Amino acid sequence: MIVETQHIELFSQNSKLELESGQILGPIQVAYETYGQLNSAKDNVILITHALSGDAHAAGKHSESDKKTGWWDLLIGPGKAFDTNKYYIISTNALGGCMGTTGPSSINPETNEPYGLTFPMFTIGDMVTLQKHLMDHLGITKLLAVAGGSMGGMQALKWAVKYPEFVQAVIPIATTTKLSAQSIAFDAVGRNAILRDENFNGGKYYQKNIYPSSGLAIARMVGHITYLSEEAMHEKFGRRLQNADDYSYDFESEFSVETYLDYQGGRFVDRFDANTYLYFTKAMDYFDLARSFDSLADALNQTQSQFLIISFDSDWLFPPNQSQDLVNALIQSGKDVSYCNIHCPYGHDSFLLESKVQGALISGFLEQVYKKHESGNAIEKSLPSPTTSDDKKSGSIFEGERIDHRQIERLIKPNSTVLDLGCGDGELMQHLQNHKNIHGMGVTLQEQDVVGSCQRGVNVVQFDLDEYLWHFGGQSYDYAVLSQTLQVVRRPEFVLKEMLRIGRQVIVSFPNFAYWSYRIQILFSGRAPIGKALPHTWFDKESVNYLSIKDFEEFVESRLNAHIIERIPLLSRSGKQRSFMPNLFADEAIFVISQQKRT
Amino acid sequence: MIVETQHIELFSQNSKLELESGQILGPIQVAYETYGQLNSAKDNVILITHALSGDAHAAGKHSESDKKTGWWDLLIGPGKAFDTNKYYIISTNALGGCMGTTGPSSINPETNEPYGLTFPMFTIGDMVTLQKHLMDHLGITKLLAVAGGSMGGMQALKWAVKYPEFVQAVIPIATTTKLSAQSIAFDAVGRNAILRDENFNGGKYYQKNIYPSSGLAIARMVGHITYLSEEAMHEKFGRRLQNADDYSYDFESEFSVETYLDYQGGRFVDRFDANTYLYFTKAMDYFDLARSFDSLADALNQTQSQFLIISFDSDWLFPPNQSQDLVNALIQSGKDVSYCNIHCPYGHDSFLLESKVQGALISGFLEQVYKKHESGNAIEKSLPSPTTSDDKKSGSIFEGERIDHRQIERLIKPNSTVLDLGCGDGELMQHLQNHKNIHGMGVTLQEQDVVGSCQRGVNVVQFDLDEYLWHFGGQSYDYAVLSQTLQVVRRPEFVLKEMLRIGRQVIVSFPNFAYWSYRIQILFSGRAPIGKALPHTWFDKESVNYLSIKDFEEFVESRLNAHIIERIPLLSRSGKQRSFMPNLFADEAIFVISQQKRT
Repeated sequence: MIVETQHIELFSQNSKLELESGQILGPIQVAYETYGQLNSAKDNVILITHALSGDAHAAGKHSESDKKTGWWDLLIGPGKAFDTNKYYIISTNALGGCMGTTGPSSINPETNEPYGLTFPMFTIGDMVTLQKHLMDHLGITKLLAVAGGSMGGMQALKWAVKYPEFVQAVIPIATTTKLSAQSIAFDAVGRNAILRDENFNGGKYYQKNIYPSSGLAIARMVGHITYLSEEAMHEKFGRRLQNADDYSYDFESEFSVETYLDYQGGRFVDRFDANTYLYFTKAMDYFDLARSFDSLADALNQTQSQFLIISFDSDWLFPPNQSQDLVNALIQSGKDVSYCNIHCPYGHDSFLLESKVQGALISGFLEQVYKKHESGNAIEKSLPSPTTSDDKKSGSIFEGERIDHRQIERLIKPNSTVLDLGCGDGELMQHLQNHKNIHGMGVTLQEQDVVGSCQRGVNVVQFDLDEYLWHFGGQSYDYAVLSQTLQVVRRPEFVLKEMLRIGRQVIVSFPNFAYWSYRIQILFSGRAPIGKALPHTWFDKESVNYLSIKDFEEFVESRLNAHIIERIPLLSRSGKQRSFMPNLFADEAIFVISQQKRT
Repeated sequence: MIVETQHIELFSQNSKLELESGQILGPIQVAYETYGQLNSAKDNVILITHALSGDAHAAGKHSESDKKTGWWDLLIGPGKAFDTNKYYIISTNALGGCMGTTGPSSINPETNEPYGLTFPMFTIGDMVTLQKHLMDHLGITKLLAVAGGSMGGMQALKWAVKYPEFVQAVIPIATTTKLSAQSIAFDAVGRNAILRDENFNGGKYYQKNIYPSSGLAIARMVGHITYLSEEAMHEKFGRRLQNADDYSYDFESEFSVETYLDYQGGRFVDRFDANTYLYFTKAMDYFDLARSFDSLADALNQTQSQFLIISFDSDWLFPPNQSQDLVNALIQSGKDVSYCNIHCPYGHDSFLLESKVQGALISGFLEQVYKKHESGNAIEKSLPSPTTSDDKKSGSIFEGERIDHRQIERLIKPNSTVLDLGCGDGELMQHLQNHKNIHGMGVTLQEQDVVGSCQRGVNVVQFDLDEYLWHFGGQSYDYAVLSQTLQVVRRPEFVLKEMLRIGRQVIVSFPNFAYWSYRIQILFSGRAPIGKALPHTWFDKESVNYLSIKDFEEFVESRLNAHIIERIPLLSRSGKQRSFMPNLFADEAIFVISQQKRT
């Protein structure tokens, strides 16, 4: 893919852009690239936003002889996650950058000298405003999605808050809604190194051609350590010496990791402007999505986008819990969100390096967003018929069809809302969405189930039921479902109480430990029982809770203080109900319980 | 406690110290402090070794008006962990330091100028050699213990390897046997900042009185970030602005964390020498305890000390897994080791800030070491009678005496070796040590049980049975015991197979799920059973595995491929054996199994 960077001038000396700081700037040159074709409806546009050291060149090569591709070529291109056969991708160099968009190294037309530190301070919000002006200029009236990692993810989030009607979906990756004290501290060290460099000269180093290279190199070195995980550094360098077998006993760089940092620092100095580094890190430090709102949930309240949030478990710069805070706030404000914490060893840089899971999530998510868009705002309307993967077998403990799923479907009223805890690959939720027009969300701990659910068009978040249910609002769903999951949760009482708080009705299915065959096994053989609904031996299993229908009924009344609305004892072999002496003759049960009595 | 720094000159221009690098140095001034009284037997000496920015002043004050106490005053003093009423504490400024011991800022007698970078490169081993010379000079012939955190912990470890007969115990805290690539990288950034400072002048900055303050301040800032956990930084600073309500939109430090780093950087520059910073970080980077040995276990093989290893769960500079590697190597080489990973939020700095758990571990450990010393090498001989806490009730699921413990004791031959997995507070092991003269080790996951076992004089390591058994050698113990723990392990088959590999005999006790009363409960009431040996309801319990005596027997033969040597079915209520139809009439069982048939 051969691509070209384009340039455009927005604003002018007479009509400047007003920044959040109150300062004004104009004219502004903007560098951008596009990949793929804009369709006639102009509804296939995805904006890519870059991280600290990125630029407009996100994919492809500038010439055949170009050795390097754009920084996100792994994910952007024909048939890739951001599929240029389907979508029209726009990537811009951010405001204040040094790769074609006006920044501190640009000439100030009023002085005919580089701006340096006279360049006005700008924010992530200002970057987004400039991008919006570019979209207006290009005649784009709607974005299918805004996607980016790290600082790019901040821009994506700001888009959703600042231009809610303009953005159908946002994909913030390896990012945060606000920097932690630790991240600010790292940025501060980098800025200190630059500001204290003898050649910095108050930011006026351009004319002299002597740059604050030491300071910028040190800033980059610190940055690089934070972009990699300890594990990745260990794999890559360990304690290897670069050019010797024994210690040199001097202060030259001798460990491989030292020469790597020297190299990275040196290379960065050649391509990046120290002042832009100061401004970009300051913009990140200032970024706080909840600022000027009561809370993060309040800030997100006005958004109209669907969200796909991705974090990486080895990212310690913007660690997963910061993405989880964002997901929680989105759930609190009742937004459509999917979340995956991808297992990947490369640290913060994973968003630039991992393509398998990230790609599957992004492509599945975009496809569903695009489909929903085509068929109108499908969240309120009925969804189109399933196209491909519906009724795909789930990876459950049951070999055949999940008979409890079909029973649970029967219990759920059309057009209602459902929270499916332990949702597997989203089979039940997709079925409910397609056949009963329900709206809802699945929760699972398994990465592959997040991908599966995402591909089925089911909102899904990767959370541990035993930890993360508090952010779901009281009575925020018509139904909370826990199908064949009660036996594996570590804190069943906590989970069920939370479900009763969240759902007006709670639907639970579990294997009945008091099934006659199990009783007989225990009585006569004196062994832990095994059967279709209890398929594992005592030493090789996932179940940790064994309970009977009777146990559950007593538990509902005495501990949960709830009411049993409906009880469906089943024989898993046949799928038939067993109403006579169910605690003896059913090996599985479905219960509907509620804080309220049957209405 | 008013203390005084003392100074002594070792070596001379004619008789220099030969360093590991092959270079020589002399004379060498050494600064040290002592606390407490040397007893007549000179056997109560503890050497304290300091970290990167520490010095000889570890405890007390230099004068009544002194505002600050020594850096480890929390743990050193009358009645404290390092109890100066009992022990004689010596603390020295390390070789190459800038607080009284000869270092790069000292005058080279041959040139009458400060050494600067002409100071010879030295190692952690060289620091230890100098300390050994100080001990010789002071007439100390044996150290009860060497203790230190971070770089001080490295010195403690080096002592154990370099002078095995001199050191009875070592307490390496928050340390590592070798720096990771990430830690070397942070050090390299700090050194880069100093070396690139315009005022560094090749290390000859003393005469000019213009110091490389920017570089040293930046190095210190980077260091400070690595000493604190993200959580601690969040608690301490969050995103608070230091002096304003709104952003200043300039490059002054404005977040509290920035002004904190400025302050720490500035303060450090006033008290510390940049060249010493270079040399100390290089000595740490070079430190690799296994260097010139085949493996870490090989390096530790010659040690004769008892080890108490302490790490902190929030320490990400020298994270717990690095201490665990050390513990594993000690286990592999059959050494006496105790290990605790203390839960504490302050990051690497925890070793300077936490005193409760650290103090209890250190004082309990020292007391036992001192006692063993007094009664000769007690490991081979019989231990003294229990003094205080023996037969203290353990925090088990049984309200009264652990009847299974008394039965297990009966099964164990005197003078044998025992590994107790899930050892609780060490009650069984202490009893075995005192009454059967066994030697061994406990394993537990609970911090309070590590403290308890340590105080009972039982070697104990804080490990997860389901993860960490591979480092115990094949047939390295006469007995491996798992008492009332089988039902809570997540991977029973793995754990038991490992035990059979490690122990010549394996002793297991567990509740019998097929006890007649449980069968009846399940049969007639259709409920999950409850009883004395199964005290928890299905939803409120720690057990995850339910099995019967019959289940276990079948499992031993079919899955473990092992032999049952002895079977003791018990009734927990009476503590009596139940030999008739045990799977029906016993609610608890003890098994002895082995890979070998009964001999």
